[in-house]
Amino acid sequence: MATKSHPVTRHVVSINDLSKSEIETIFDLAQAYLTEYSDPNLPERIGRSSNLAPNYILASLFYEPSTRTRLSFESAMLRLGGTFITSADPTTSSAAKGESLADSVRVITNYADVMVIRHPRDGAARLAAEYSSIPVINGGDGSHEHPTQTLCDLFTLKKKNKRLKNLKVAIAGDLKGSRTIHSFVYALARFGADIVPMAAEGMELPPHVDRRLREEFHCNFVPGDGSIDALYRTPEEPHQPALFSGPDFELSVNVPGGNLSPGEEAVQRRKIDAVYVTRFQKERWAEAREGYPKIDAKFLKDAKYSHASVLHPLPRVDELDASLDSDSRAVYFEQAAYGVPVRMALISLLLGLQRGKSLRKFEGGFEAEDVPVYDQPLNAGIRCANANCIVHEPKESPYVRNKFHIVKSESDKGCRLRCLYCETDIDRFFVASRKNKWYTDDTSELLHARDPGIKDFLAFADEADAVNRGFHSKRHSAARASQR
Amino acid sequence: MATKSHPVTRHVVSINDLSKSEIETIFDLAQAYLTEYSDPNLPERIGRSSNLAPNYILASLFYEPSTRTRLSFESAMLRLGGTFITSADPTTSSAAKGESLADSVRVITNYADVMVIRHPRDGAARLAAEYSSIPVINGGDGSHEHPTQTLCDLFTLKKKNKRLKNLKVAIAGDLKGSRTIHSFVYALARFGADIVPMAAEGMELPPHVDRRLREEFHCNFVPGDGSIDALYRTPEEPHQPALFSGPDFELSVNVPGGNLSPGEEAVQRRKIDAVYVTRFQKERWAEAREGYPKIDAKFLKDAKYSHASVLHPLPRVDELDASLDSDSRAVYFEQAAYGVPVRMALISLLLGLQRGKSLRKFEGGFEAEDVPVYDQPLNAGIRCANANCIVHEPKESPYVRNKFHIVKSESDKGCRLRCLYCETDIDRFFVASRKNKWYTDDTSELLHARDPGIKDFLAFADEADAVNRGFHSKRHSAARASQR
Amino acid sequence: MATKSHPVTRHVVSINDLSKSEIETIFDLAQAYLTEYSDPNLPERIGRSSNLAPNYILASLFYEPSTRTRLSFESAMLRLGGTFITSADPTTSSAAKGESLADSVRVITNYADVMVIRHPRDGAARLAAEYSSIPVINGGDGSHEHPTQTLCDLFTLKKKNKRLKNLKVAIAGDLKGSRTIHSFVYALARFGADIVPMAAEGMELPPHVDRRLREEFHCNFVPGDGSIDALYRTPEEPHQPALFSGPDFELSVNVPGGNLSPGEEAVQRRKIDAVYVTRFQKERWAEAREGYPKIDAKFLKDAKYSHASVLHPLPRVDELDASLDSDSRAVYFEQAAYGVPVRMALISLLLGLQRGKSLRKFEGGFEAEDVPVYDQPLNAGIRCANANCIVHEPKESPYVRNKFHIVKSESDKGCRLRCLYCETDIDRFFVASRKNKWYTDDTSELLHARDPGIKDFLAFADEADAVNRGFHSKRHSAARASQR
Repeated sequence: MATKSHPVTRHVVSINDLSKSEIETIFDLAQAYLTEYSDPNLPERIGRSSNLAPNYILASLFYEPSTRTRLSFESAMLRLGGTFITSADPTTSSAAKGESLADSVRVITNYADVMVIRHPRDGAARLAAEYSSIPVINGGDGSHEHPTQTLCDLFTLKKKNKRLKNLKVAIAGDLKGSRTIHSFVYALARFGADIVPMAAEGMELPPHVDRRLREEFHCNFVPGDGSIDALYRTPEEPHQPALFSGPDFELSVNVPGGNLSPGEEAVQRRKIDAVYVTRFQKERWAEAREGYPKIDAKFLKDAKYSHASVLHPLPRVDELDASLDSDSRAVYFEQAAYGVPVRMALISLLLGLQRGKSLRKFEGGFEAEDVPVYDQPLNAGIRCANANCIVHEPKESPYVRNKFHIVKSESDKGCRLRCLYCETDIDRFFVASRKNKWYTDDTSELLHARDPGIKDFLAFADEADAVNRGFHSKRHSAARASQR
Repeated sequence: MATKSHPVTRHVVSINDLSKSEIETIFDLAQAYLTEYSDPNLPERIGRSSNLAPNYILASLFYEPSTRTRLSFESAMLRLGGTFITSADPTTSSAAKGESLADSVRVITNYADVMVIRHPRDGAARLAAEYSSIPVINGGDGSHEHPTQTLCDLFTLKKKNKRLKNLKVAIAGDLKGSRTIHSFVYALARFGADIVPMAAEGMELPPHVDRRLREEFHCNFVPGDGSIDALYRTPEEPHQPALFSGPDFELSVNVPGGNLSPGEEAVQRRKIDAVYVTRFQKERWAEAREGYPKIDAKFLKDAKYSHASVLHPLPRVDELDASLDSDSRAVYFEQAAYGVPVRMALISLLLGLQRGKSLRKFEGGFEAEDVPVYDQPLNAGIRCANANCIVHEPKESPYVRNKFHIVKSESDKGCRLRCLYCETDIDRFFVASRKNKWYTDDTSELLHARDPGIKDFLAFADEADAVNRGFHSKRHSAARASQR
Repeated sequence: MATKSHPVTRHVVSINDLSKSEIETIFDLAQAYLTEYSDPNLPERIGRSSNLAPNYILASLFYEPSTRTRLSFESAMLRLGGTFITSADPTTSSAAKGESLADSVRVITNYADVMVIRHPRDGAARLAAEYSSIPVINGGDGSHEHPTQTLCDLFTLKKKNKRLKNLKVAIAGDLKGSRTIHSFVYALARFGADIVPMAAEGMELPPHVDRRLREEFHCNFVPGDGSIDALYRTPEEPHQPALFSGPDFELSVNVPGGNLSPGEEAVQRRKIDAVYVTRFQKERWAEAREGYPKIDAKFLKDAKYSHASVLHPLPRVDELDASLDSDSRAVYFEQAAYGVPVRMALISLLLGLQRGKSLRKFEGGFEAEDVPVYDQPLNAGIRCANANCIVHEPKESPYVRNKFHIVKSESDKGCRLRCLYCETDIDRFFVASRKNKWYTDDTSELLHARDPGIKDFLAFADEADAVNRGFHSKRHSAARASQR
């Protein structure tokens, strides 16, 4: 099909492409840069340039508006002593002539050493990575992920709290459309923080994100108690009630602890360490919303926020009151400033600039099992259920295939299909055997297939499709076989 | 309220932020750069780069179209050996997501060492400076000011005329909407040049600019005499008739000298040293205009222009005829070329790159008295009367206050309020005492208040507002008090 | 009229501005850069930067969308160790304020050392060159030319075929609107390649391009034979049938050789060495077209394409099937990668960075005779017949003149007028003598005039214009004279 990625090229499309130890390496290097190249008057800000990446070129490829992501990447590259080229306006690029992302990426890899890409479609960054021979960094793809924002967020949390483990982090606003939230919750779960979701109405975490938190990152979902809506408790460390005492942990509300264990009660009573506020992602929703939560001084008067850092990926619109700017808990401008050292560190590691330190050259750094991939052409069988996924972009149709990770279900013996690009799940589907001519809703057939690709099996979204393609129900086949 | 500016940060928002000696320092340095780094074939143009600002970063933040200002700043930065990051299209920046200027500025200060900003709103650059910890240079804010254009204009005048004092400079076209004109006339007055306004109909200098020329810069306004419309005579040097003789000063028209003193007559008879032409600022006017003055060969045939340099900040549309391009009096392309050395010098001084030479680190360099500031929240009392002022931008409402300089009137014992951002004046207003419950149109009450801020006094645009807020006329109060 | 170009400035507006030996010099240098600065993993791609052009500035001035041309120029400049400034969006530049190209160019020449320009109008790059004191490189002007794309194309052909002479190159698609095709066919003819036109219906080569191939580059136009549509045979080398034998030259179709010479037959039977595919230039046509040729695996199954390289300037839309991407004949991504070393070489030579190697400093490098120019103001006489020519852009009207090369016709004793800017021809016109008061359709009068400019002669598009201006037919004049 297409030019294969260079085998040793490393991409950062999802926060889960980085292992925890790699993230710690990035933070150590970011802190080292911050110490060495800070502005003497503003020590939390990079104020001088280095000569670490002389003449290396970053390509900024932005198909959606951006100020801070693009400029902070470009500033980071300059602070490393490198340079950049920019295509920031789809209306003045070859996209206006109808060029596919796959083609644009293959061309631009010849002009630069590392690439950051932003795109309105979920999964676009993974597609770009498939076609790139230089490292691709996801600068935000639709509602999917924004991993470098999460690196800045985590770095800020760590600077403010000296640790990531056992933090209690509230996430407020549009948890559905915000890509920063999706990368962030995966990282919080993996680093052992508890997550308190505070969604605007109808903007809860998408089902596939919720399930990954519970099934893959083994969060324990604890329902709300009146004080908080709910809690994802991470399994990283046993939560011992004894740990939660002292002034930080005074109760501010009555907890109806009836059906909670003492440990769970203690976690719920713990104060919030950080509130992460997100903007209503108007570009991802057809209509404006009323009743979006607003974080202001009054909200933060609740004793459980007395020590809570307030983070926001910015830009903000109305959801974070300007009166908080002078509040010592407000850290969002520091968070923005950390974008430079954190991105310097990531670029430096991807380019192999630090002797003895680098990101391992393999696809996906997170210690994930080697998940089998179901791969079929566009014109056969099931397609990603997410209408905003890059696989549904007409311009890309010659360059994408229907590719799904086959993910074993925790709840039954079957499996789910997770789109390789946008990571949305398909829970219920039908599996057809080309050899045996039957189809079935028993998805474990696919899970146990030796070669789960198109050769043996076809997957269908509904039964009628399978029938139309000339397959018969496996039960009927079995029945008929037994009748004979 | 908001993060305070770093105390030692120096901004150039108005030409009046620079003292005369600082402007001379900039010119000396610009000339030194021009001499050292010129193109051997084109000695009035920078043609080589230096290594004076290695890896320093300029942020270009443009909310309005620009070619020469942005590119000349970026070229200047490169010629200094520095680099830049650019956000030149509001539709592809976070402004498209609804971000305020105040937030964008606070974020971008973390990515660069110095910032140039252009914005359609008057006063936007001052707001940016309030929120920036790095030097902010105004690249043009609405109809307010464009100080670096004025530096290029003055530098050109000085190169062509060997002096700035006692020059006679005609300014033609849209004197109302042109920000370059406003910065330019302040500078001409301060450096002792006489100004001949030649406004298009209905495009005269705004009242507050006119009054500042007369009251603060002590220009003597001399009405027209048939030869010229009018003249702002600067007080810098006594104009002795004896100075104005020789071939440069032949009379070209009959001067009805009836009510002019001999000195005034001589000044009016003097030839014009420079004609400064400006474009009709179509983006600042709702409708097109007819009868805009056109400067062409015929116009310049008048003997009083025989030695006049013709300047234009460019771009031109129709107001400056192309046939002049080969006229030796046309200096507008040299003027554009000087943009590079002049901006190199300004950046260099703001960054402190020249040992022993720098701009003093205080807010406002012009030897202005320390004018008291009246400061109140947006929801109380008087607001800036200029509808295009940045304080009226809804997105900025959480980040601005009603701030006015309290300027003593020359004509009576009262005072005016001058918007801290756009510098438009409010002449007539009402002062209310919160302690004494009265209001009055005697604005001297505010002038003599020890603390003129919101604590003691409220200012109202009209009487009804004061009455609605429960204040009583001071006269009535006094009357009632005397009745008791 | 306008500021003259600096006399020693060299521009590359047409591929014909470069002599063949200069093109070879560019290729030698490009290959040297590719060898020295290649990516170790991807040897056909520049992967490291040099320090050859420290701090030189490229200005990118793009009035039309671009990704690969702009970014590859900027990458080339960075790989040379230089820097760049960019104006890539006409809506955010001074063009939005109505500035002419002539003015923009004169200003920007002060900010950079070399300039690349793209513009929707044919001939815009030549106009830019007239007003520039730094080298101007044409990055594509309307449907006119795109010479640096042709350099990449030729370089790719040479790399793949070890030679340019005697290649047989098919060009498919929009041969009328594609500027890359126009530059390419001139170069193919000059380097001795045979050209097989495969135009989409109604998109044949423009008449003036066809005629230049035949008359100026002495191609022999051979009509189609069923195997191919037609052929431009270049005269460079005698085509001896003996040369065309061996497996590369097996016949794949029956050739009706009736009216072809044996040599011509052999050329027609030769396999195609390269197929050059172009996109439908939707921005140059008012309507969409059906039946645009599509190059896919099936098309290339024909034995005559068995060894043909497939080139495409990109971006592609539908005319080049994605399934070819993994075909070993597909070289279009390498072709894109070569954009960097080839442009590095061109910039390097224009800036004189290579000791002992440079482009001669004269206007037009091709060994063209010194063609006389007919030059008149816009308001008198004939105008360029191409409505998209830059001379018809209202904003440029003060800065252009009607300028035509006077080109001797091969077919009769008269001449044609070739627009100096867009190079479109006017075949039939009338010549009027101002001295003698007559006009005539005998264009040889202009050809033999000592001073063909406006002083002696006026050219008119039609007879009525001449009559209206008071001229009389020369025949009548002669008749009347003989009657007397």
